[in-house]
Amino acid sequence: MCGIVGIVSSEPANQLVYDSLLLLQHRGQDSTGIATADGSMFHSHKAKGQVREAFRTRDMRALPGTMGLGHVRYATKGEASNEQESQPFYVNAPYGIMLVHNGNLTNTRELTSELFHIDRRHLNTTSDTELLVNVLAHELQEQITGSEELNPDQVFAAVSRLHQRVEGSYAAIAMIAGKGLLAFRDPFGIRPLVLGRRVSGLVGTEWVVASESLVLESGGYEIVRDVAPGEAIFISLDGEMVSQQCAANPRLVPCSFEYVYLARPDSIMNGISVYEARLRLGNRLADTIAKHTPLGDIDVVMPIPDSSRPAAMQVAQKLGVEYREGFYKNRYVGRTFIMPGQAQRKKSVKQKLNAMGSEFRGKNILIVDDSIVRGTTSKEIVEMARQAGANKVTFTSAAPPVRYPHVYGINMPSRLELVAHGRKIPEINRELGSDNLIYQEVADMQAAILEGSGVTELEMSCFTGEYVTGTVSEEYLRWVEQNQLS
Amino acid sequence: MCGIVGIVSSEPANQLVYDSLLLLQHRGQDSTGIATADGSMFHSHKAKGQVREAFRTRDMRALPGTMGLGHVRYATKGEASNEQESQPFYVNAPYGIMLVHNGNLTNTRELTSELFHIDRRHLNTTSDTELLVNVLAHELQEQITGSEELNPDQVFAAVSRLHQRVEGSYAAIAMIAGKGLLAFRDPFGIRPLVLGRRVSGLVGTEWVVASESLVLESGGYEIVRDVAPGEAIFISLDGEMVSQQCAANPRLVPCSFEYVYLARPDSIMNGISVYEARLRLGNRLADTIAKHTPLGDIDVVMPIPDSSRPAAMQVAQKLGVEYREGFYKNRYVGRTFIMPGQAQRKKSVKQKLNAMGSEFRGKNILIVDDSIVRGTTSKEIVEMARQAGANKVTFTSAAPPVRYPHVYGINMPSRLELVAHGRKIPEINRELGSDNLIYQEVADMQAAILEGSGVTELEMSCFTGEYVTGTVSEEYLRWVEQNQLS
Amino acid sequence: MCGIVGIVSSEPANQLVYDSLLLLQHRGQDSTGIATADGSMFHSHKAKGQVREAFRTRDMRALPGTMGLGHVRYATKGEASNEQESQPFYVNAPYGIMLVHNGNLTNTRELTSELFHIDRRHLNTTSDTELLVNVLAHELQEQITGSEELNPDQVFAAVSRLHQRVEGSYAAIAMIAGKGLLAFRDPFGIRPLVLGRRVSGLVGTEWVVASESLVLESGGYEIVRDVAPGEAIFISLDGEMVSQQCAANPRLVPCSFEYVYLARPDSIMNGISVYEARLRLGNRLADTIAKHTPLGDIDVVMPIPDSSRPAAMQVAQKLGVEYREGFYKNRYVGRTFIMPGQAQRKKSVKQKLNAMGSEFRGKNILIVDDSIVRGTTSKEIVEMARQAGANKVTFTSAAPPVRYPHVYGINMPSRLELVAHGRKIPEINRELGSDNLIYQEVADMQAAILEGSGVTELEMSCFTGEYVTGTVSEEYLRWVEQNQLS
Amino acid sequence: MCGIVGIVSSEPANQLVYDSLLLLQHRGQDSTGIATADGSMFHSHKAKGQVREAFRTRDMRALPGTMGLGHVRYATKGEASNEQESQPFYVNAPYGIMLVHNGNLTNTRELTSELFHIDRRHLNTTSDTELLVNVLAHELQEQITGSEELNPDQVFAAVSRLHQRVEGSYAAIAMIAGKGLLAFRDPFGIRPLVLGRRVSGLVGTEWVVASESLVLESGGYEIVRDVAPGEAIFISLDGEMVSQQCAANPRLVPCSFEYVYLARPDSIMNGISVYEARLRLGNRLADTIAKHTPLGDIDVVMPIPDSSRPAAMQVAQKLGVEYREGFYKNRYVGRTFIMPGQAQRKKSVKQKLNAMGSEFRGKNILIVDDSIVRGTTSKEIVEMARQAGANKVTFTSAAPPVRYPHVYGINMPSRLELVAHGRKIPEINRELGSDNLIYQEVADMQAAILEGSGVTELEMSCFTGEYVTGTVSEEYLRWVEQNQLS
Repeated sequence: MCGIVGIVSSEPANQLVYDSLLLLQHRGQDSTGIATADGSMFHSHKAKGQVREAFRTRDMRALPGTMGLGHVRYATKGEASNEQESQPFYVNAPYGIMLVHNGNLTNTRELTSELFHIDRRHLNTTSDTELLVNVLAHELQEQITGSEELNPDQVFAAVSRLHQRVEGSYAAIAMIAGKGLLAFRDPFGIRPLVLGRRVSGLVGTEWVVASESLVLESGGYEIVRDVAPGEAIFISLDGEMVSQQCAANPRLVPCSFEYVYLARPDSIMNGISVYEARLRLGNRLADTIAKHTPLGDIDVVMPIPDSSRPAAMQVAQKLGVEYREGFYKNRYVGRTFIMPGQAQRKKSVKQKLNAMGSEFRGKNILIVDDSIVRGTTSKEIVEMARQAGANKVTFTSAAPPVRYPHVYGINMPSRLELVAHGRKIPEINRELGSDNLIYQEVADMQAAILEGSGVTELEMSCFTGEYVTGTVSEEYLRWVEQNQLS
Repeated sequence: MCGIVGIVSSEPANQLVYDSLLLLQHRGQDSTGIATADGSMFHSHKAKGQVREAFRTRDMRALPGTMGLGHVRYATKGEASNEQESQPFYVNAPYGIMLVHNGNLTNTRELTSELFHIDRRHLNTTSDTELLVNVLAHELQEQITGSEELNPDQVFAAVSRLHQRVEGSYAAIAMIAGKGLLAFRDPFGIRPLVLGRRVSGLVGTEWVVASESLVLESGGYEIVRDVAPGEAIFISLDGEMVSQQCAANPRLVPCSFEYVYLARPDSIMNGISVYEARLRLGNRLADTIAKHTPLGDIDVVMPIPDSSRPAAMQVAQKLGVEYREGFYKNRYVGRTFIMPGQAQRKKSVKQKLNAMGSEFRGKNILIVDDSIVRGTTSKEIVEMARQAGANKVTFTSAAPPVRYPHVYGINMPSRLELVAHGRKIPEINRELGSDNLIYQEVADMQAAILEGSGVTELEMSCFTGEYVTGTVSEEYLRWVEQNQLS
Repeated sequence: MCGIVGIVSSEPANQLVYDSLLLLQHRGQDSTGIATADGSMFHSHKAKGQVREAFRTRDMRALPGTMGLGHVRYATKGEASNEQESQPFYVNAPYGIMLVHNGNLTNTRELTSELFHIDRRHLNTTSDTELLVNVLAHELQEQITGSEELNPDQVFAAVSRLHQRVEGSYAAIAMIAGKGLLAFRDPFGIRPLVLGRRVSGLVGTEWVVASESLVLESGGYEIVRDVAPGEAIFISLDGEMVSQQCAANPRLVPCSFEYVYLARPDSIMNGISVYEARLRLGNRLADTIAKHTPLGDIDVVMPIPDSSRPAAMQVAQKLGVEYREGFYKNRYVGRTFIMPGQAQRKKSVKQKLNAMGSEFRGKNILIVDDSIVRGTTSKEIVEMARQAGANKVTFTSAAPPVRYPHVYGINMPSRLELVAHGRKIPEINRELGSDNLIYQEVADMQAAILEGSGVTELEMSCFTGEYVTGTVSEEYLRWVEQNQLS
Repeated sequence: MCGIVGIVSSEPANQLVYDSLLLLQHRGQDSTGIATADGSMFHSHKAKGQVREAFRTRDMRALPGTMGLGHVRYATKGEASNEQESQPFYVNAPYGIMLVHNGNLTNTRELTSELFHIDRRHLNTTSDTELLVNVLAHELQEQITGSEELNPDQVFAAVSRLHQRVEGSYAAIAMIAGKGLLAFRDPFGIRPLVLGRRVSGLVGTEWVVASESLVLESGGYEIVRDVAPGEAIFISLDGEMVSQQCAANPRLVPCSFEYVYLARPDSIMNGISVYEARLRLGNRLADTIAKHTPLGDIDVVMPIPDSSRPAAMQVAQKLGVEYREGFYKNRYVGRTFIMPGQAQRKKSVKQKLNAMGSEFRGKNILIVDDSIVRGTTSKEIVEMARQAGANKVTFTSAAPPVRYPHVYGINMPSRLELVAHGRKIPEINRELGSDNLIYQEVADMQAAILEGSGVTELEMSCFTGEYVTGTVSEEYLRWVEQNQLS
């Protein structure tokens, strides 16, 4: 759950990358980093926290150059305090490579062993991004013969080799010192990556590659297309772009969670508008609700702001019930300080949401959330609605029950913590304390997201337990759950 | 445009004040401060920026004590970089007084001169809060006779004298060292202040006074009542509360802008729910729109998130037109860095909003905003809608035209910068570039806000030019416009 | 053990005060502060640590104005971490007063009670400087009658009253907002204060008042004279200087420890050159050594750098023995970090000194130190000399045995921690592990310091137990020892 | 002009390295860095400024592991603000290497080109340390064949190859991840490096390698020996030490400036005590002075503290003239802030030294300094002595005239800035404004430093213009003077 961006421009790249990262901030707020290339010299700055806090004027001034890339990171528990895991990652041979990555590799144990014992490369962290940049560096080194200049074919050959060695999801952007910017996406295209272009009379053609299309739209870039699954794109320092398919059997199987929860609604991914996908999720959910609930039972439909708003609006419209925003989101969330002699106080959903009594009192409320993972927040929301005076609380989820771990770059707890793992819906309903609980059907989610897009497959493993990359075994899942790698 | 809170508890006050300030953060993000009293010792910490950034664990540990107060501040241009203007303010005699203030005094020039020449008090800033605490200190000093203990009557007498000397709007909270917490509100009750109570088996009765009721609700406090115009409330260190009306002719004339834009929708002020007031503003605006617009002309109603959402929902419902959220708000706003040799780039609304093309293309859009001040943002929004493909753009404002300065604590530009100053509506429409422009009527705004509340008067000077405190002259307005005091 | 400086100039005072504080840094390194007055506005910045670390460019830019004062502070154990105790201290009525102080008041308990119960002034710290500025403020307030302008006679009358209320040692400098700079010294002149002047073609006459004369010399100021015991000096904003004796029976009884250890050798205090006083202390000590030691017993004389160097050079010369610097002082002293699970390691003299083996091996060494307080360092030095191969170690002190607390502003441990408290010299010798131990005689120290100066009395209470201010009782000493006030 | 240290212990290395760097702080104060190895994971922290300011507790806690190395750096003008040039430097293949370096390479242009074009390694800075670590990495990579474990012979072979490629001075320490610590010295042993050992009952054998022996002595380590010119030493993680001569024709030609000025007096380098070398420099200088000066002409001998103290003491003793410390060194040196609208004020020697009038008035002074480089400080010192009232000023230098650049790691200005470049002694005397100027003879300096040591050669190029490494041409010197590399 990270966001990445890379830019080749002819004006300073630092502010362009910075502005882009702000627009990707919803994808990760634990740490951030920018690297730029000034000629063949790299400059970088990484820090904990949000983009706004991480870069001061002096940091930006130390980021000269017209090529750059950036990263925002959502860390797992163990990593949060570890600044060494922050991206971008750098290796100094061959050429000097600086790389950012969104995704998660699933054969990290094999790769670590190979790199150490065969390639003699040192890994100084447990980050799979460090693995990725070292595999890329090793394969690029292998392509170099004699003394001729590096050419894109060598780069594409290295990416092809990388696809053969690496398993999992990865959308990556790399700068090769003195050469140019490389972007590539795993053979299933699990994580998103989109290519844009801006032609300016003053500075010529600028290229941008980013996790989400809104970065392009907000920056005034034209959306060229999604980077294809398995494809690599190389943009030289002087703005020449070449691309090549580097995977043997590429298939587009994008991650469903981008549409359900993660991406911004104003992004278009793989030709699918996130906003419209969410409206369609609402439409389909409304049908399911209508099947299971006598409509007189519902006075008002309410979203949990902000992500379930489109689905909820559609549910309300389709059911012909009033739409009301009874929950107000606290934008400014702070900390609970531990004073000497005190224990840590429990974090509660009350820090994030407030319920407006007048919208609840005596009414039958239908709440629409985007998904239910652990269930703890949902339970507190139900309780909050009751305390605000709700008569009856129906809880609905625009996504199906989450029953399996997500191993492709979205942090999820171990199976034991998933409220839907091993439970039937009535049991979950009892757990949440709601009067009624309605989930989207898996087939409906798939149809809603893919409708009219030409895309035929969807990565839905956390709902179905079927993993698109072949090697995710029960043994691997247990290892992930113990080590909390993301 | 500030937020204040004061707490008398029997558990540590620092986290309670901190949590409250987070909930008031929308009222000011330029600086913040907390002061606590541990016995008769004060401790305080102030810093620039938002609450989340301003307090580290070490700062919180240096704020012991069970009584405390806090402030969030919205600064004018000149003050933003001046940390000395941050609140709370402190004077050390008599007793030691620490004070926070929301509002704006309108006779600062007279008060400054009196304090310096007659009271021999030193003012080290141009803040009207420093004036307020010095007037309070001087009047309290005057009440002390002989060696008896301070009693609430002396405090109330001092507030009565203060009401006679001070003009303008002020909701204030002060700690008197070793004595207790004082809260008072100007004789017109222009700025809000609400009293709450929490009874806990563990720690006894806790009192809280805050700018908005949601602080009470989120904290699990019972709302006791609004502090009355002119009233003072004194809570002793051991939790005994006494109150007294200290003004000669108090009248409740609350600020309309709290309901239009400033306050959180989940607050109730002077018995009026902000959220419901906004729904009613939407209803009334819908009627006006219906009068001026052939309905076939509108395909979709859109709010500018977040504040105009309730009004827009109501407009859509009443007009029977589809409600759509075509604008997405960028939550993470950063800076534009000035690099050596570069000029400052213009800030644009594009940093704050993004338009989703699919909602605009070929449609006739009716945009609902809460109000129009300078008009620059509105103009950019219209342009953004057109670029996103809108066919026809109708711009509407849930508040009437803003034509006069606001001198009671809400920062507004000088009259020359107000787009509605000296312009008729068709002229403003041309200025904004919209196809049609519809404002709320003044009488409708007043009726919408006050409806069913029992409150009969509303401070609406920026719409009407009529100032409730007698002394706001043309000469004063010019001085304010030149000196940008808030 | 602090250093103070005040400046009235017609150019910016901030850098002048900063440069002066660097020269006084040896008097205190725990915290520092600068305040300036720009017209009648005060600006101040205080921080922990040394001057060099405490002020950044932005801090200096926020200190405009041509009048200023500064402070460096040596804190007792309890205070070190308490930034609120940092100087200068400010009160806002009458006029606004900003004050710095070097010394220690001995009737703080009485003053605290008076200020609270009679003067109704709030003390927010346990600092005696806050007491001093409040007494000054209160007495100045009492002098104001009617509306005429403040004149120096009123200020001098207030200082006279202050001398009657306050006991102990105090050299103080205060700025009165919009008026000028006040400096005064206690009626015994225990702590030093010297007045200087600089006439510049560009900016007219500049005045400076500082703890030590080297500040004047290094800054190119002419030394006008010491401020007399009990005297007050007032310099108006436009550089007019007036002075008056404000004490009933002033007597000059300067602190002996300034000459023994505290002051810089290149300072002249009360007409006595510190460097020459130390040479004379060496001469007298040499005589005593000659009486007690067969000279063939000593091969080499060694100082403990830096403060005992002049005395040791003189001892060597007078005894006709070779002078050698066998100890090297580590200038860069760091911290011992506490790692999780580790205990704090003991600080050792090895972090501060290193012994050069070649100067010690097989030799009889005579070590000269300026004084012996706790004895723990001396003991480690003796051990270090033995480990470096010394044959015989004679330890000598240029000051007599320290047997009593110092209550006039130099931090000393409680009596139980003084190695000479209740012990005879042979017992101390055993304690230190030296072969021989020789102290300066009290009469010799007095004669050496005062010789040829015209000064007739010396504050030597820590050697003799006789306190020059009448009220230092056994009960007071016990209270001090328990509360560690300095 | 840097200091380095490396430690292999069985207790945490962070505090050991930190304590060592404090003792090497005099060798460089511009930036500092520590790296540790915890198993095969490296951790590092670098920062600007002195050690004391650079490491907070949190930084130290992030440096786990029992092997570590550290660096203090003296930067040239251009580099001072460039944190990227801070050491240690890291490359991640083969194995992972972390390296610190004291010295200066003289064939950086050739190496840069080779590394880029032939070895395909990216250099991200202009630091010669980055060159050194890349040459080492490349040569180590070349040694690896098949899959066997790395053995010391391969490491020694790589260092042998490095000696063939690299020219200039270099004492270096490197950690090889998961393997051990490597230390090596250039074939002329220009820069110092000493090996120590500590056997502790608790933790077994600890090894330390450092620039100066005082680090060993202060830390309680036994001095094993100097690392020989051209030698490499490898210490495995479990404390096994092996060494090998890796240069074809090693010769010991140590840098004279270490003895003249740079090293701490309590260090022993190449078997020569720095302190005793300085005493001997004083003895020889006294002879030269006696030849050129009628002794009645000198009343007093004075050092410039701290480095010329031993020489000056010896001059005084040998001439039979009184030794006096008339100059006092200001330990706390701060900054001159640039205020808006002000120009930078000139730095003057007055910020560093103060003259005590009483020692100068009416006397003939002989000043002993360690060396004269630019001459600007010497000139100001002469002037200061005259202003303090000196009758006649004889200036003497314990080193010969500095007439050529120093290219082996000591920052020196270009030839045009050297006061002795192209000038005869009477001309220099006129330049400095002294009455008489006496320099040490080159032969005397050499004899004084080497006397009784068994060392036969000395690197004295800045006095003689003869460079021990063959390739320092006039063209190179000009390039260095333009690029200010150190």
